[in-house]
Amino acid sequence: MNYWETYKRNLKATIEYDGSHYCGFQAQVNPEIITIQETLEEALTDLCREDVRVISAGRTDSGVHALGQVINFYTNHQIPVEKIPYALNQRLPRDIIVRQVEEVPLAFHARKYALGKHYQYRVYNNPEPTAFGNDYFYWVPYPMDENLIRQGCKILEGTHNFKGFSASGSSVKTFTRTIYYINLRREGDWWYFDFYGNGFLYNMVRIIVGTLVEIGKGRQPLSLLQRVLDTQDRTLAGKTAPPSGLYLKNVFYP
Amino acid sequence: MNYWETYKRNLKATIEYDGSHYCGFQAQVNPEIITIQETLEEALTDLCREDVRVISAGRTDSGVHALGQVINFYTNHQIPVEKIPYALNQRLPRDIIVRQVEEVPLAFHARKYALGKHYQYRVYNNPEPTAFGNDYFYWVPYPMDENLIRQGCKILEGTHNFKGFSASGSSVKTFTRTIYYINLRREGDWWYFDFYGNGFLYNMVRIIVGTLVEIGKGRQPLSLLQRVLDTQDRTLAGKTAPPSGLYLKNVFYP
Repeated sequence: MNYWETYKRNLKATIEYDGSHYCGFQAQVNPEIITIQETLEEALTDLCREDVRVISAGRTDSGVHALGQVINFYTNHQIPVEKIPYALNQRLPRDIIVRQVEEVPLAFHARKYALGKHYQYRVYNNPEPTAFGNDYFYWVPYPMDENLIRQGCKILEGTHNFKGFSASGSSVKTFTRTIYYINLRREGDWWYFDFYGNGFLYNMVRIIVGTLVEIGKGRQPLSLLQRVLDTQDRTLAGKTAPPSGLYLKNVFYP
Repeated sequence: MNYWETYKRNLKATIEYDGSHYCGFQAQVNPEIITIQETLEEALTDLCREDVRVISAGRTDSGVHALGQVINFYTNHQIPVEKIPYALNQRLPRDIIVRQVEEVPLAFHARKYALGKHYQYRVYNNPEPTAFGNDYFYWVPYPMDENLIRQGCKILEGTHNFKGFSASGSSVKTFTRTIYYINLRREGDWWYFDFYGNGFLYNMVRIIVGTLVEIGKGRQPLSLLQRVLDTQDRTLAGKTAPPSGLYLKNVFYP
């Protein structure tokens, strides 16, 4: 019997958070390190009056944000779902917001049931720095060639072994992932990169953006992308773009 | 002889900063308290290779921002003015930016020569909270009556004794100040209040905004404003709006 079969309810919640002041999503052993997960678990434990454990669709790193992170948790508490967001938001700090809660079958698991994800990466492209909001984007002070970057996005779309675009540190069975599409939208000084994929390796979006920016700046040739895909050599790819620009926007479920 | 007459140069600088992570502008005795002033002085001392003291147009409180704070400092160092912003920004954290530096007469004093100031206060008016950027505005989740607030701004414009709209804590000779105008601009959920005045008392803008918001929400009558002006009674006025919404935009000089 699975441990969750002892519970009456399985609740799925959509979460928005500003990751600036947290050491990532995943709870850490060191109690001085404050994470999104333990902050959520504290609020849920207080609300449900029983120990609540949170399962997420995926970890986000320190400084990475979420507009649509998905979690699930088991409880026996009988509070109606529509009352949970308000009750939780009262117990949460202002930079974590529960947007929606719904009842799901006991078997639902936020990570295992996830079919894919949508990440957005935000680049601020202006020669002048700004004192404000540096936790929310990646500042690139150099001009970038939009056409080259768009061509680069096309090269990366599809099913590839993305090992060369990932950081070591997570144990995965395979480095093959499918990027359905990468959309680039420009608004003034802002470049929004939207990544839709069936899954993303550790630091994959940030390394791809870091590499695309170097190509856009003319520091690397467009052909670098195919070479990294072919050789799977992380050292050839660009620097990892900072976490501040990355937003988990949506998780897709059946 | 004034101490500054021993120096060769007096430099005026325009500064932008995100006050979120600082305990206000003014240097404190406690070395654990990090302020804008001491951060600037450290960078200047490093650049000029001599102890540099900063004079500002006015202190800003913990969490208050600036787009156009003005300072001056004396030095004997011969670096050309046009090279100073870049050289300083290299030595400053990303949330403090020196925008412009110019040479001024030795007698110039950023506070004593200031003729007036422009502050902006930003209110985010939406029933839903947001996890992002809460260091940069004041979130008001209730509907507000724009017309009442505009009438309130008109009542406060002009020369008045603003003692009832100030916090104790600073020694001033007189509580009489002139507000030339208060402009309110709305853009979607955003309310921008622009205050132009010859000077502002301690917490004056924040207490005025706090009171206008209570009038806008219908919690207090419009007549409260005149009553606070007449009685000079701080306890009648509204709550002090949070520092996060306040921006020093400009300082006016002869």
